[in-house]
Amino acid sequence: MDNSRLTQLRAEMKQRGIDVYVVPTADFHESEYVGEYFRAREFLTGFTGSAGTAVVTADKAGLWTDGRYFIQAAAQLAGSGFELYKMGEEGVPEIPKFLEDELPQGGVLGFDGRVVNCKLAEKFQEAVEKKNGSLYVTEDLVDRIWTGRPAMACTKTWILTDEYSGESAVSKLNRIREKMAGEKADYHIVASLYDIAWILNLRADDIENVPVFLSFLLIAKETATLFIQPEAVDETVTAYLADCGVTVDSYWNVYDAVTKLPGDAALLMNRKVVNYRMASALPESVTVIDKDDPSELMKAVKNETELANTRKAHLRDGVAMTKFMYWLKTNVGKIPMDEYSVGCYLDSLRAQQEHFLDLSFADICAYGPNAAMMHYEATAEEKSELRPEGMLLVDSGGHYLEGTTDITRTFVLGPITPKMRLHYTTVLRCNLALAHVKFLYGCGGLSMDVVCRGPLWEMGLDYRCGTGHGVGHILNVHEGPNGFRYKIVPERNDSGRFEAGMITTDEPGVYLEGEYGIRIENELICVKDEKNEYGQFMKFENITYCPIDLDGVDPELMSAREKKQLNDYHKMVYEKIAPFLTDEERAWLKVYTRAI
Amino acid sequence: MDNSRLTQLRAEMKQRGIDVYVVPTADFHESEYVGEYFRAREFLTGFTGSAGTAVVTADKAGLWTDGRYFIQAAAQLAGSGFELYKMGEEGVPEIPKFLEDELPQGGVLGFDGRVVNCKLAEKFQEAVEKKNGSLYVTEDLVDRIWTGRPAMACTKTWILTDEYSGESAVSKLNRIREKMAGEKADYHIVASLYDIAWILNLRADDIENVPVFLSFLLIAKETATLFIQPEAVDETVTAYLADCGVTVDSYWNVYDAVTKLPGDAALLMNRKVVNYRMASALPESVTVIDKDDPSELMKAVKNETELANTRKAHLRDGVAMTKFMYWLKTNVGKIPMDEYSVGCYLDSLRAQQEHFLDLSFADICAYGPNAAMMHYEATAEEKSELRPEGMLLVDSGGHYLEGTTDITRTFVLGPITPKMRLHYTTVLRCNLALAHVKFLYGCGGLSMDVVCRGPLWEMGLDYRCGTGHGVGHILNVHEGPNGFRYKIVPERNDSGRFEAGMITTDEPGVYLEGEYGIRIENELICVKDEKNEYGQFMKFENITYCPIDLDGVDPELMSAREKKQLNDYHKMVYEKIAPFLTDEERAWLKVYTRAI
Repeated sequence: MDNSRLTQLRAEMKQRGIDVYVVPTADFHESEYVGEYFRAREFLTGFTGSAGTAVVTADKAGLWTDGRYFIQAAAQLAGSGFELYKMGEEGVPEIPKFLEDELPQGGVLGFDGRVVNCKLAEKFQEAVEKKNGSLYVTEDLVDRIWTGRPAMACTKTWILTDEYSGESAVSKLNRIREKMAGEKADYHIVASLYDIAWILNLRADDIENVPVFLSFLLIAKETATLFIQPEAVDETVTAYLADCGVTVDSYWNVYDAVTKLPGDAALLMNRKVVNYRMASALPESVTVIDKDDPSELMKAVKNETELANTRKAHLRDGVAMTKFMYWLKTNVGKIPMDEYSVGCYLDSLRAQQEHFLDLSFADICAYGPNAAMMHYEATAEEKSELRPEGMLLVDSGGHYLEGTTDITRTFVLGPITPKMRLHYTTVLRCNLALAHVKFLYGCGGLSMDVVCRGPLWEMGLDYRCGTGHGVGHILNVHEGPNGFRYKIVPERNDSGRFEAGMITTDEPGVYLEGEYGIRIENELICVKDEKNEYGQFMKFENITYCPIDLDGVDPELMSAREKKQLNDYHKMVYEKIAPFLTDEERAWLKVYTRAI
Repeated sequence: MDNSRLTQLRAEMKQRGIDVYVVPTADFHESEYVGEYFRAREFLTGFTGSAGTAVVTADKAGLWTDGRYFIQAAAQLAGSGFELYKMGEEGVPEIPKFLEDELPQGGVLGFDGRVVNCKLAEKFQEAVEKKNGSLYVTEDLVDRIWTGRPAMACTKTWILTDEYSGESAVSKLNRIREKMAGEKADYHIVASLYDIAWILNLRADDIENVPVFLSFLLIAKETATLFIQPEAVDETVTAYLADCGVTVDSYWNVYDAVTKLPGDAALLMNRKVVNYRMASALPESVTVIDKDDPSELMKAVKNETELANTRKAHLRDGVAMTKFMYWLKTNVGKIPMDEYSVGCYLDSLRAQQEHFLDLSFADICAYGPNAAMMHYEATAEEKSELRPEGMLLVDSGGHYLEGTTDITRTFVLGPITPKMRLHYTTVLRCNLALAHVKFLYGCGGLSMDVVCRGPLWEMGLDYRCGTGHGVGHILNVHEGPNGFRYKIVPERNDSGRFEAGMITTDEPGVYLEGEYGIRIENELICVKDEKNEYGQFMKFENITYCPIDLDGVDPELMSAREKKQLNDYHKMVYEKIAPFLTDEERAWLKVYTRAI
């Protein structure tokens, strides 16, 4: 890409007297993935990764991104005028520090106040204050230069009936109002698209693979207003919302609505999610109660209907995965295959399953050394051929009317080295250890991560990511506040206490640059175990049903207990999946779920 | 005890118009254990436990304490007029809630402002504000009624020379001043007796088993003042302090000194430690920087001298313990023994060791069901006879010129049941697992506690306390910020990140009420292991040298790996300890450190 976009942005900045301009990767709701309309940073810099922030001054232009993207970003930024700032590397300033250094005394810092949350804006503001500068946040400068910008997504909302949600929107709103009362809040603004979709039992398709709709929800003691693009709600949905006591207003009216809140109101809002422009629009006398949205924990604790349905979704997903595994391992080396084509084939198998809605994220099909890149994505143009040797890592999942899945299997396509087998077996041991941990209520993932990582740490190995994340129910595949991680990463919000009903992934791995990548991922429901004088014990129920490729396993490296855990798991997989297979597939499955 | 003290206190309260009066268990420094002078709550209520708070109104009198003390407190409070409030039990209000409920509108809450830290006082104040009430904090009312109150301790300070401290006081003060500069602090008040003793390389004997001295230390950019009872410092110490740039002033002058701080000063102080009266004495315009004392982390990370010396102290301590174990197991059933007498014998063995200074805490020698009480203390009057059956738990430790020890062994005195053997072996497995964990730098004890607890949790068992605590160097045997625990207990301050040089205990246990108690405790130094592309790996070095009683161990319940860990440990114990034993003892040790 050439640097014309950068030049144009600088012209716009100059016209407005802006010294530094920041373009993050975000929509107005702190969504993890964003729709095409919101890819301003990508438009500006040419860098297509999912995370990164561009900062432009009159003579400097930087793109900050993390270790996952150093190689890709360096390539894509070429010619754009942007320099790569490798986050976390020694000598690379954090953005607030850079702003402080670059902003002249009394200078102006600009950003679109809708794509920066209040907490982050606070940090920017601190930098500005040190230079006695000011903010310019009312305009999206990239919009001025982005000719042909895609329209903002506006898909039709549909109702997830109580049969599938397990709890009516009215009941959810009442529970939230109880929490509001507990916090002495008169109002609560919900900005998270996942939470709004969960509360109202509505879904749509405004973000690829994330069935949400652009909106804000303002909940008062007796009333509630959904701010949404008018075209997204048809008569049925409008009537349904009216029945739930929810009024519909235009998406763009929300900023005006919050300016009209009573001056003595107490407003519950999560400043990590609500955007800066909205917070700035509040009457100054409004009392902000800055807490997590009550719906966040509520939606993480799946109800009985959601749990029963999720198990059904995993059964279908397991059938698709098992059929894929059979096909892959039977045909590799015999018919042409590449990373992209087998991914498409897997997608087609999922699509054939009953009540399939969408993929829950873009497949990762990564062969050989590609699998060492945790977020590798093959395309029709760039992909590797599969050969009957080494390993293929496949991380994929689906949304079904019954729930969402996320599974990773690493398939052995032919001969592998002893080191691969050692690492494969160790990753399996890690996965099994966490799945079988028994713990006292009160533990968060922070207290249990070592159970999974332990066998790898002993070997001096690690994976540079969390061990697992919460899974949304026909929502974002990544969801808080549950997760497994050995140190708190505040912005991840995944250090919460485990409650019965939470669903979390268990996905240890080994990633050796230039060599290979191994990941084995199952999903676990947290359930109650015995309760005695020591407290309530908890454990996990494994709800991912698909063989773990025994061709990668060295039983000699496993304890009797670990072998039993694996054999029990495979026995369950056979029982669940076999009825849905052809005779040939079933015979094959028998072999691949054999006891070792 | 009769209720005359309560009646007298109420008379004092009435005279001053105080509606509610609070008497906590504390000195002016938030010390864990307090000197006799400070046992006002014990004087008032008759309850001798180490933790508890008395609250008195005109018609109610309550003593709040925790689960360790329910039985003891109930017995000791009889007749005192005090009712037991069992903390943590359902329906028992927390103290601030009780204050809020009991205080009349516009009422007066009283407490000695020197025995309540700022954070706690804040909670009391919130309760008072809800009733538009006021505080009365300038007088210790118990002092008015306590005839024959013991004098405040005032022991002689002595210098721990650099040879033993490994770092001069001047160097420590300089490091603290660097931290102060980093926080932009002009002054720093140190109220923790442990920290003052560590900073100045001075020790004394003002608290039983805790070699500290009552004092405050005010550090300025260039100067420092030690507020201490004049009789505690002789000419040598005064001259030494002068050499360190530390001026000596009277203990009681500190409150006046802080009132005279410059109005524009920035003062670094830990509001969890500094008492309310001192904070109230500050000029209002002083900026308080409320952070942990920099010395807290510094003293937790032992320097090379301290580490080398601590190993020496443990060697001597291990010799005493091993001799004790030999004597105990050889003679039980043959000569009269009881919990108290064997404790005294153990103390005498420790006292014979070179450079022995004091016990690091009062021994716990608990036989049979007594060992199920974690804080049982036998006395000359109340004790159990030892018989050649069951188990004796001994938790003890010493201060030596080289360092401090804390060790627990559970000795098998004769036949034990299969359940005892199962639990003994499991506790051992827990202990070994934690001692051998390898982890990435960045972990705190919160991330590793499960490694220890796991085997017990699997059996539906738990111990109702942390797994381990930091150990002071000739200071309080319990020290932050390191520790092992599976959920954060904020007031414990033991969830810090592990740094190389920290020393922490590893002490899992099984405690079955009315049956028995088992605990095995070693101390671990955190040391660096390999460093590679994943980061700095860390591990533990076991520095407690004493056999773990093989008579309690069932090798069948242990993995090959666990057996190897135990055998390696016992091999080390033999090598370290054997040279210091008699021939008879040595022959015995050979048997009790045999490979299984």
